Amino acid sequence: MTRITFDEMKATIKKAFVLAGMPEDKADICARIHTESSCDGVYSHGLNRVERYVEYIHKGWIDVNAVPILDMNLGAMEIYNGNMGPGILNAQFAMNRATEIAEKNGLGLVSLNNTTHWMRGGAYGWQAADKGFIGICWTNTESCMPAWGAKSGGIGNNPFIMAVPRKEGHIVLDMAMSQYSYGKLQVTRLKNQKLPYPGGFDNNGVLTDDPGAIEESRRILPMGFWKGSGFAVLLDIISSLLSGGLTTAGIDKFDKGSCGSCCQVFIAINPLKINTQEFIDKALGATVTQLKSSVPDRENGEVYYPGEQSMKTRNENVKLGIPVDDGVWNKVKELAGINS
Amino acid sequence: MTRITFDEMKATIKKAFVLAGMPEDKADICARIHTESSCDGVYSHGLNRVERYVEYIHKGWIDVNAVPILDMNLGAMEIYNGNMGPGILNAQFAMNRATEIAEKNGLGLVSLNNTTHWMRGGAYGWQAADKGFIGICWTNTESCMPAWGAKSGGIGNNPFIMAVPRKEGHIVLDMAMSQYSYGKLQVTRLKNQKLPYPGGFDNNGVLTDDPGAIEESRRILPMGFWKGSGFAVLLDIISSLLSGGLTTAGIDKFDKGSCGSCCQVFIAINPLKINTQEFIDKALGATVTQLKSSVPDRENGEVYYPGEQSMKTRNENVKLGIPVDDGVWNKVKELAGINS
Repeated sequence: MTRITFDEMKATIKKAFVLAGMPEDKADICARIHTESSCDGVYSHGLNRVERYVEYIHKGWIDVNAVPILDMNLGAMEIYNGNMGPGILNAQFAMNRATEIAEKNGLGLVSLNNTTHWMRGGAYGWQAADKGFIGICWTNTESCMPAWGAKSGGIGNNPFIMAVPRKEGHIVLDMAMSQYSYGKLQVTRLKNQKLPYPGGFDNNGVLTDDPGAIEESRRILPMGFWKGSGFAVLLDIISSLLSGGLTTAGIDKFDKGSCGSCCQVFIAINPLKINTQEFIDKALGATVTQLKSSVPDRENGEVYYPGEQSMKTRNENVKLGIPVDDGVWNKVKELAGINS
Repeated sequence: MTRITFDEMKATIKKAFVLAGMPEDKADICARIHTESSCDGVYSHGLNRVERYVEYIHKGWIDVNAVPILDMNLGAMEIYNGNMGPGILNAQFAMNRATEIAEKNGLGLVSLNNTTHWMRGGAYGWQAADKGFIGICWTNTESCMPAWGAKSGGIGNNPFIMAVPRKEGHIVLDMAMSQYSYGKLQVTRLKNQKLPYPGGFDNNGVLTDDPGAIEESRRILPMGFWKGSGFAVLLDIISSLLSGGLTTAGIDKFDKGSCGSCCQVFIAINPLKINTQEFIDKALGATVTQLKSSVPDRENGEVYYPGEQSMKTRNENVKLGIPVDDGVWNKVKELAGINS
């Protein structure tokens, strides 16, 4: 396994984006977010996603020069048209704006319509938490999962993020609505392994941990069966009604790539408007202590708080370099005009 | 199976609450919410919960005369002390207040600290939707589920609700963080049945659909495995930081019954501040159509939108009467001073 330093990966991705036509300052930010995703262990939306991102730019599915424009200002809530600009930049802008509103009043909500794939949703949770804010955000997507009770796709995989700032390490949940991603199924199948827990139905409608059988049936499992299915529907329609943008059904028709013209919601809350830092430290400390003091389900096991493993992976990858697939790395170097 | 009319059930529960010391107007509202829960098929938090509720009043764990008092006003966000008053009344008040704030600005958030069990969380989603608002709410609870990776309890089952108003029937998600409730395990075991899907781990740490084995190990499964576990943690700490109240760890120490001195968050959004009714109808219509047109996974199967089955059950129970367990019904009549 090859490991690449953070700086080399970022510089290479940036070159690829500049060559694809993105202004240098924007390419710099996008390259950082892709690199941070890989660095945190979310490989699917980091380096591995660069080639497809460049394709989308070439197809005209992302307007590298577009910026979000205010549609409506309702005080604590603002609505922006993302104008099909880079999803990362639009989402960063929106979460930042939500924190600016919350700075004043404690609470800010910013929604985006007509935006594009934000890559790793967790990035905007970490962003809010780094600034000292509670962050909640979600996006809708094209349909890619059967609803509960169906065997054909009909609902989005709509990631949902909640983040709470904490000195010793933010507490961050970043979850999509499927139990596993198709990326995870592929990786597991290529290793000739089974999934740790059932991840979908096979062509006979039987719940299975065989990744290949699920790739074939396209029946990935909503997390929590009917619960994740219902949650996906509500996240979808609320993001549309909060932004005036397309639902999953509309994104399907629009048909400009994954998350083309999707909607996103960003909520920021300033916990220091409500509590003292001492109260916050105590509340979060007691929660982490309670988690850490529960009995692990296996020998030498450990119970992690949400976000803890991302931080561990980040620290390791910053020190040792970020692991890459050689084929993917060479492809991105090629897109960056670098001879391997 | 005995069926009781809505009105008879409500009147009987009301008498039981009045006899327990609750003022008549408050007893009327609480009885209605309990009856509506049973009527919608949420039997565990309807009639079946009345006996325990009365016990809590007698133990002094609920102050039947307390009302929520404003702790802090931050514009779009208000924070109230629930003063250990009846959880149903506090929650109704809070969601109603959130809609009042949202009426003006589009968005309102009200949080409660020091409140008590709200019974069926979905009630407050339906309440917001009935008034034409999008409603989002959640509560924290005492710990009752092992976190992912643990075999002893440490996290709350923190229900989470999202509701969207729709003429033909609101779209409402009402989910706790465990895949199944202990109530569901008990009912399934008593019928000598297996759970439809795995619902926890047995004493050997093996995932199982045997309800009795899970009741024994106390290792109910968070929905979506690690996902529901992480979601529960974030709902808990955010409800505490938004209200200045106790986390799950604090509720455990406080030790005054299920959800004693818990925290709740209520968000209301006025979709008509952002969209025309025509846009809303189209967006929701397209989503329901897409769901309904997916291929069912079994012959004569049907794909439901979230909340649809509650509405069907409600309509049936209003027509035929609400099914009750005779033992439970007689007990509530006894508490109401009615000779069976």
